[in-house]
Amino acid sequence: MKSIESDLMRVDVNCDMGESFGAYRIGDDEKIMPFVSSANIACGWHAGDPMVMAETVRLAAEHGVAIGAHPGYPDLLGYGRRNMETFQGEIRNYIIYQIGALSGFARERGMKLQHVKPHGALYNLAARDERTANEVISAMKAYDPELILVTAAGSLCAQMAVSAGLRVVKEAFPDRAYLSNGQLAPRTLEGAVIHDTDVVRERVLTLVTSGRMISVDGTEIKLEADTLCIHGDTPRAWKLARAIRETLDGAGVRVLPMARKY
Amino acid sequence: MKSIESDLMRVDVNCDMGESFGAYRIGDDEKIMPFVSSANIACGWHAGDPMVMAETVRLAAEHGVAIGAHPGYPDLLGYGRRNMETFQGEIRNYIIYQIGALSGFARERGMKLQHVKPHGALYNLAARDERTANEVISAMKAYDPELILVTAAGSLCAQMAVSAGLRVVKEAFPDRAYLSNGQLAPRTLEGAVIHDTDVVRERVLTLVTSGRMISVDGTEIKLEADTLCIHGDTPRAWKLARAIRETLDGAGVRVLPMARKY
Amino acid sequence: MKSIESDLMRVDVNCDMGESFGAYRIGDDEKIMPFVSSANIACGWHAGDPMVMAETVRLAAEHGVAIGAHPGYPDLLGYGRRNMETFQGEIRNYIIYQIGALSGFARERGMKLQHVKPHGALYNLAARDERTANEVISAMKAYDPELILVTAAGSLCAQMAVSAGLRVVKEAFPDRAYLSNGQLAPRTLEGAVIHDTDVVRERVLTLVTSGRMISVDGTEIKLEADTLCIHGDTPRAWKLARAIRETLDGAGVRVLPMARKY
Amino acid sequence: MKSIESDLMRVDVNCDMGESFGAYRIGDDEKIMPFVSSANIACGWHAGDPMVMAETVRLAAEHGVAIGAHPGYPDLLGYGRRNMETFQGEIRNYIIYQIGALSGFARERGMKLQHVKPHGALYNLAARDERTANEVISAMKAYDPELILVTAAGSLCAQMAVSAGLRVVKEAFPDRAYLSNGQLAPRTLEGAVIHDTDVVRERVLTLVTSGRMISVDGTEIKLEADTLCIHGDTPRAWKLARAIRETLDGAGVRVLPMARKY
Repeated sequence: MKSIESDLMRVDVNCDMGESFGAYRIGDDEKIMPFVSSANIACGWHAGDPMVMAETVRLAAEHGVAIGAHPGYPDLLGYGRRNMETFQGEIRNYIIYQIGALSGFARERGMKLQHVKPHGALYNLAARDERTANEVISAMKAYDPELILVTAAGSLCAQMAVSAGLRVVKEAFPDRAYLSNGQLAPRTLEGAVIHDTDVVRERVLTLVTSGRMISVDGTEIKLEADTLCIHGDTPRAWKLARAIRETLDGAGVRVLPMARKY
Repeated sequence: MKSIESDLMRVDVNCDMGESFGAYRIGDDEKIMPFVSSANIACGWHAGDPMVMAETVRLAAEHGVAIGAHPGYPDLLGYGRRNMETFQGEIRNYIIYQIGALSGFARERGMKLQHVKPHGALYNLAARDERTANEVISAMKAYDPELILVTAAGSLCAQMAVSAGLRVVKEAFPDRAYLSNGQLAPRTLEGAVIHDTDVVRERVLTLVTSGRMISVDGTEIKLEADTLCIHGDTPRAWKLARAIRETLDGAGVRVLPMARKY
Repeated sequence: MKSIESDLMRVDVNCDMGESFGAYRIGDDEKIMPFVSSANIACGWHAGDPMVMAETVRLAAEHGVAIGAHPGYPDLLGYGRRNMETFQGEIRNYIIYQIGALSGFARERGMKLQHVKPHGALYNLAARDERTANEVISAMKAYDPELILVTAAGSLCAQMAVSAGLRVVKEAFPDRAYLSNGQLAPRTLEGAVIHDTDVVRERVLTLVTSGRMISVDGTEIKLEADTLCIHGDTPRAWKLARAIRETLDGAGVRVLPMARKY
Repeated sequence: MKSIESDLMRVDVNCDMGESFGAYRIGDDEKIMPFVSSANIACGWHAGDPMVMAETVRLAAEHGVAIGAHPGYPDLLGYGRRNMETFQGEIRNYIIYQIGALSGFARERGMKLQHVKPHGALYNLAARDERTANEVISAMKAYDPELILVTAAGSLCAQMAVSAGLRVVKEAFPDRAYLSNGQLAPRTLEGAVIHDTDVVRERVLTLVTSGRMISVDGTEIKLEADTLCIHGDTPRAWKLARAIRETLDGAGVRVLPMARKY
């Protein structure tokens, strides 16, 4: 039936992965991988290294999870969370480099990169800064125009990427509160992060089945969400991932890699 | 005529390029590029960065020069010239990462990577150490079995790569003296580096037209040389490159990317 | 009374600390600090960063713990556990740099560095390789001849440092098995790491009160131990630290910074 | 006589040095060192490494040149020329780390650090941003309250450092044009950099003997200059350094390390 195949009844679940580095561990990739459909894999700049990348791609392949590049600033010390001034073309080439580096491990397993999701400060800057957005888009088109850009719904970057002919997938954060204008509530706001798993389950269901969410001031807002983002770097992330996946499975929502949207 | 098409009358000329980093410059890439047929491009580990890589690939494309990856140890401080202990699989994944990173810039220009030539300490170790050679070969086969390995004639790595089904191209160094056993004379030996351009010209001609060279003790040795390596990191490298190219052109030897051998 | 003041009834307890980096955490420094008398603080090369160093020095000061530098190879990716080839003078200058860097945070709190304990591969190489040992010793004498070198009892480095006029403190590992020749049992040997806390308690008591230990083949060996090393990078390290400290306190052994030996 | 001892007839000449890294060279330190009285030595973050630092300190000692730390952002790739977002306390600890690291090489030669001059983007940001200036000042006071801060005359940082009780030395750039408000003319303005050595000589003389300079619009401005900065990273920098030094010597102006001011 059409309804089962509709966009509302399918969704992608993505998570940042491969963010360990050498002897340092971040994220429970092995425990989370079974519950997601798309993995954003760090590329060795803000996090990740070749051994970690190889292992993360292997793990994704094992679970039938689609993979994408998760490029960041050259700032391992700051985990890519700090804005950096860059000169014209630098972000573009940084991203081409990182996509390429990850692609090597994908080729090894006969996989193709599905998407690109910039990390941390780069994600946020690209969402609102025209030059940065342009460089992200330009990098993706230079590398492979079939790559999907994952970005926040309503961001400048989303609009520009669509205009540029890229495929764009919008993400929502089930464990984050939203303002009534559809923007994420800043982390400094009380209640910005939702810790109650049952509340998150409810929000996931409402969002996926109706495209709506209750904002912090109680109004219902419309929220396009092609993919749900799970934060992997908290200690209990895998439990949240499992809860979200069970909720979706239980409601008959199909969890599929974002490329299936197209 | 057959003779013109024979291996003896064609040769590749390769040079390490793209070894600048940020504000730091090494090599006269712009001046050398017109005289070579294959460029080994640093991949951001022992040298190089995304801006330099993008520019070096652009320059190669402009001159019709074939490109390859020049991967090295994660040792910018030591310029990849120091051996590093690595654990099982690390070299393999380091190389896959670096080949991939460079490939991004090649894709941008519709180019394909032709070859891989490890840098510095990694080149030397791969030439004699079985585990290292195996990891280099394994990385190349994982990434693209069509890649050509550039290595020293007579090295362990050359034999192993041929057995593994890789295409192998052997290189000779026109400005370096050879021992009578066909090995490079160590740099500590007087006369190990030949500075007289006229002598280098002569050696190039003899080598390319007859497959022979005079060793340090005066005996004539046989030397297979599919490609001639020019060192780009000396101040006058581009003059040597020009002299070698003029010599080859003047003798009717065709200078062609190494892939043409196959 | 003399016996209470004797060397046998006092001992130092040291632990590697400050090995986190940016967003990456290694070690339970806050939980372990109360139980040790000397902290070996990573200096930003194999691990550690300025924020971590500042915080670790602050924590040591708060607990009255003496501090020393824990310098390593320039290999964050390998956590300083891989040997690296270096050229003459490099190790020396790497160590001067790292000692100096840490000293800045010590000055801030009116503290002085008590000791130097090389990390990982550098510790092991210095223990057996003459040139490396010489460079470690030379760095310490150049920076401050009063610095104490912490090294394995019986190592080449210990002998050389004593000859060079440095103060040397020998360390033993209570949770590691020893061969009958007084060397550490290699980790590949079954039983090399002792996980039973009660057994470790017993070994600590025997070692500190009698200067002896039972080796893997059951023979009693003599072991000079001015300081006991606790490994901080295992999940339950702080419990072992607490157990060792309780054992020492209970037996009337005074736990004092190694400088008190002199 | 008073006039000879007056501030107007003595001046410091400073230059950024030790900005090479591994195999990469920047600056003609050996040629410039004879002409300056204070060397700002890179500390391994935006440039420099332990071997370079050791050699630069040795060279300064040989020429009787006073030394200071030249700390920068953790951005070797960008040569410290790009602004980076940092979180509270990071700049402070980055600077303590770098001062400390350099101090190790000073101790080795029985020298003491005279001053601190932040590099590139950090210099510029500290000059105008209160939090950054505060962190620079806090780092210097934590390390050694006797350290002199070198900064642009009229900068926010200069005022704040004086209020905080630090010794401050103001610098002028003889080869750079000034606006009539006493600020440096931006490099994008035509004539911002003065290439004519004779003009630079004249400006040096006027500045040092009268405390005045002709601005870009022809008005005479007052400019306090305790130290003249020479840019060392241009190919002919050493010739400019020589010309400036000859001019000063010829006019009977004594070139002395900035600490002599106090």
